[in-house]
This record gives sequence, structure tokens and C-alpha cells, in this order.
Amino acid sequence: MFFTFHNTVELLGIIAFAFSGALAAIQKKLDVFGILVLTFVTAIGGGTLRDMMIGSLPVSWMKDLETIITLIVCYLIALFFTKYIRKFHHTMFWLDTIGLAFFCVVAIAKAISFGLHPIVAVAIGTISGCFGGIIRDVLLNEIPYVFRKDVYASACISGGVMYFGLLKFITDENLVSIIAGFVIITIRASARYLNLHMPDIYKKG
Amino acid sequence: MFFTFHNTVELLGIIAFAFSGALAAIQKKLDVFGILVLTFVTAIGGGTLRDMMIGSLPVSWMKDLETIITLIVCYLIALFFTKYIRKFHHTMFWLDTIGLAFFCVVAIAKAISFGLHPIVAVAIGTISGCFGGIIRDVLLNEIPYVFRKDVYASACISGGVMYFGLLKFITDENLVSIIAGFVIITIRASARYLNLHMPDIYKKG
Amino acid sequence: MFFTFHNTVELLGIIAFAFSGALAAIQKKLDVFGILVLTFVTAIGGGTLRDMMIGSLPVSWMKDLETIITLIVCYLIALFFTKYIRKFHHTMFWLDTIGLAFFCVVAIAKAISFGLHPIVAVAIGTISGCFGGIIRDVLLNEIPYVFRKDVYASACISGGVMYFGLLKFITDENLVSIIAGFVIITIRASARYLNLHMPDIYKKG
Repeated sequence: MFFTFHNTVELLGIIAFAFSGALAAIQKKLDVFGILVLTFVTAIGGGTLRDMMIGSLPVSWMKDLETIITLIVCYLIALFFTKYIRKFHHTMFWLDTIGLAFFCVVAIAKAISFGLHPIVAVAIGTISGCFGGIIRDVLLNEIPYVFRKDVYASACISGGVMYFGLLKFITDENLVSIIAGFVIITIRASARYLNLHMPDIYKKG
Repeated sequence: MFFTFHNTVELLGIIAFAFSGALAAIQKKLDVFGILVLTFVTAIGGGTLRDMMIGSLPVSWMKDLETIITLIVCYLIALFFTKYIRKFHHTMFWLDTIGLAFFCVVAIAKAISFGLHPIVAVAIGTISGCFGGIIRDVLLNEIPYVFRKDVYASACISGGVMYFGLLKFITDENLVSIIAGFVIITIRASARYLNLHMPDIYKKG
Repeated sequence: MFFTFHNTVELLGIIAFAFSGALAAIQKKLDVFGILVLTFVTAIGGGTLRDMMIGSLPVSWMKDLETIITLIVCYLIALFFTKYIRKFHHTMFWLDTIGLAFFCVVAIAKAISFGLHPIVAVAIGTISGCFGGIIRDVLLNEIPYVFRKDVYASACISGGVMYFGLLKFITDENLVSIIAGFVIITIRASARYLNLHMPDIYKKG
């Protein structure tokens, strides 16, 4: 049950990031193969890096066909809806946010199951949530979006701390994961819509 | 025999990619160390990523001196022939195509020997064939060439499907590898010289 | 004693690269999260790649809290001293040089303890020393600095060769590491201040 739950959450995160990668590629007018690579890399980049670093090999998307088939379906849907893309104004933001939250929580759970320290687990969760998007932006030859104007990491780290705080009171790990994921989404969304930013350190200079 | 054959094919792919990396670095006027890094990274990037993902560690180029010595020789040859580089008009294309085909086939064979599913194996083959060139272009601060105007992946995927199709009729894996590699090269070369492109999805918009 | 010594050297290299990453991010005016990511990635990128390639998993910074806590302290110091950054004229160079030397030596020692060939060990040392900085520059959307005008690799390779040369005469590995590290720093620093460059191969053209 534990693994089934987290596998499902990971798959939802993968779907969110897959569309985020596909849309970014389409906006940059890449060809159909470029879109395919961006779909895959954005979706599985963070999880692949996580698995390679903690030594969970072969990496998770190789262990069954679920992930690949899901990604191919996402890719075809993204291709088909290319012409409606202007309507997807806030879509990218929500896809990224959901993917971030889900990946972060799954990576923390996985790091714990590998016996790593909670602080290390939060770092792995943050890396896992952010690196799909970072690789996407690097491949598109841009400075990663997350470095520019966002509370990405703050959200991840808050969610991670919340995860371990709640574990002391709640024994059901799945419930803890859901709450922590919700916290991450809430922090990032409220930062955006309430127009909160991280402190600007350059005004000092 | 199986491993010897695939090791030889891998080494030929490494040589092709090594020159591809060195020439790209020379065209960008990098210094001699930059050329060295590009030679190595382009040649072993795809295979290193493959081995790190499937858990074949230490990665294959570390297991003997063959690869390193081969790369140093390629590097010196590339340096020495810098001044003739304008004559290498189509060279890059053929180096890339051969490297792609050989890496793709070797990675598929390796993935199977790790007990992975054929569809996963084709994905690993495609990643293995493409990522050396992608890393090369990212290091040179360009949007990867393969995203722009090519039938790169289509060739890899066709070759991979061919590989598993043929395995049902032919028992000699080496022969199957040769045919699949030939299919990949043929598809990519004919696409270029017959001026075939992937469908342009942006005309719809 | 062996591991304690090399762990300390690695930690010093990590500190040097952490500041190098933080300063580069501040110069590019990234936000506080961007600076955090650059601090971490520059500091642990080379070592993480080394561990993933040789199969020392989970990667070393995950095994205790030392590295993460050190990096957070470095990050906070870098943030706090942002306004003094113009005074840090030569700082980047020295941080990079020290990090390079320390990482190179530690990676060589680690590669030997994994039973790899000395030439492979030198290659791993060079990769380990250079890749933190390469990833830093790629994330900042620049052609890696080390490709442009430096004797980076020459220093690493000379230090590595020195390492194995000295091992034949001196049995104390720590002493050998110190001498090899000193050689790397000396070569790179004298190249800079005596204005030595690698030969320019483009004049031939």
C-alpha cells in the first residue's frame, strides 16, 4: 500500500512535468523530436537524478512500462493540442507546482526508506522537485526559471520540514504526504497570487 | 564473443562521437583543454548516462584503458588536423549518424542483458545515442542540434523496433545488431539527402 | 586516519567551490534561491558525478550532515557579505584553484580505493575537479569558463601524474596528496600570474 500510494503520486507528478516540458518545447518552436525529448527529460529528469544519487538502480522509470506509456500519451496529447496553447496561460504554473509538490514528497519518502537523515531527505526532495525544470530550461538555453523570481525552494523546504514535524503526531505516512504536498502547493500558489517574493538582496549594494 | 562484438561496436561509436565533439569545439574556437573536454564528454556522455541509469557501475569506460587511450589519440588527431577543418563539410553529419547508430544498438543489447523490457531498452538506446550530442551542444551554449531539424529519434526508434522484430526470426544477436545499426544510418542519411523532415506542427497554429 | 584526512580535504574543497558558486550567482543577480542552488551544485556537483560514475552510492554528501550544514553556513555567509563583493577581485580564482586541487586529489585517492587504474583515476580526478564549475557556468547560461583561457586540466593532469610518481617513493598517502595538491595550485597560479597560456592552435589556420 505504501509503495502503491507513492507510485501513484509520482506518476501524477510525472504527468504534470511532462506537459510542462512539452509546452515549453512548443513555445520554443522545437520540432516533434525536440518536444518528445523535453517531455521525457522534464518528467523523469528529477526522479532519475534522485535514483542515481541514492543508488536505487535501475532508475524507477525503467522498472515497468507504466511511465513510458504515460509519457507517450502525454506527448501525443500535447502535440494534438498545440493550437490551443495560448489558452494555457496559467497552466504551466500549476503543472510545475503540482509536479514540484508530488516529486518532493515522494523523494522524501524514498530517501527515508533508504535510511537517510531527514535533513538529507529534504535536500533530495528539493533536488528531485526542481531538477526536471532546471534541465528543461538548460536544454532550451535559458537561465533556469526557478532561479529568477520564485519561492520554489522555500515551498519545498517548508513542505519537507512539515513532513517530518507531522510524522511525530500522525502515524499514517500517506496522510502526512498528502498534507505536506498540499502545504507546498499552497505556499507556492499564495506567493504567486499574493505577489510575495523572496527578499531582494541587491537593494543593499 | 557477444561482449567482444558489442565492445568493438561501442568503441567505434565512441571514436565517431569523439571527433564530432572535437570538431564542434574547434569550430567554437575553444582552447586545447576545452577541445579535450568536449572530445571526452561527447564520446562518453551517452554511455556514462546509460550506465549510471541502469546501474552498471563503475561506468564502462572506467573498466579498462582502451577507451581513454582511444580518446586521447582521437583528440591528438583532431588537434593536428585543425587547419584542414573546412574540408570536413559533411563529416560532422556522418560521425554523428554512425555514433548514434552504434550507441543505440549497444545500449539496447546492454539493457536486455540487464533484464529490462524491450520498450525500455529502445528508450535507453535512444537516450544513449542522443545525449552525448545534447551535452556537447549544452556545453557550447546552444540549443541541442537534434531538437531543431532532424529525424534523430525517429531513426533510433525505428532501429530499435527493427532490432526486436528481427530477434524473432534471427537468433544471432550480432547480425541483428548490424542490421538494426544499418537501418538507423540509412533512415537518418536518406532523410537528410532526400530532404525529408518530421511534420511541422506549427503551420496549424 | 586515511579517510578522516581525505574527508577533511574534500570538505575544504567543498567550501571553496560553495563560495565560488555563490559569488557567481550573486554577480548574475540571481534571487536567494538561485544563489542557494548554485552554492550547492557548484560545491557537490563534481563529487556527486564522481560517486555516481564509480558506484559509491548513496553519494558522499548524503552520508552525514556535515556537508549540508557546511554548505548552509557558506550560503548564509555569502548572502551576508554580498555588498562587499567588489573587493573579492581575485577571490574567485583562488577559490576555484583550491577547490580544483582538493577535489582532484580526493577523487584520485577514492578511485584507487575502488581498484581503478591510475590513468582512469587521473581522468576521474580531473572530471571531479572541473565539473562543479562547468555545471555552475551551464546553469548561468555561459560557455564554461574553464574552456576559454586556462590551464585547468593541465594542472590536474600534472598533479595526478605527480601523485602516482610520488607513491613509488613515499608510502604516506596523505603526504603524497598534500604535495600533489600543492603542485596543482602552483601550476595554475603561476600560469595565471606569469601569464602563461596553453598553445593557441588557431593561429595555424
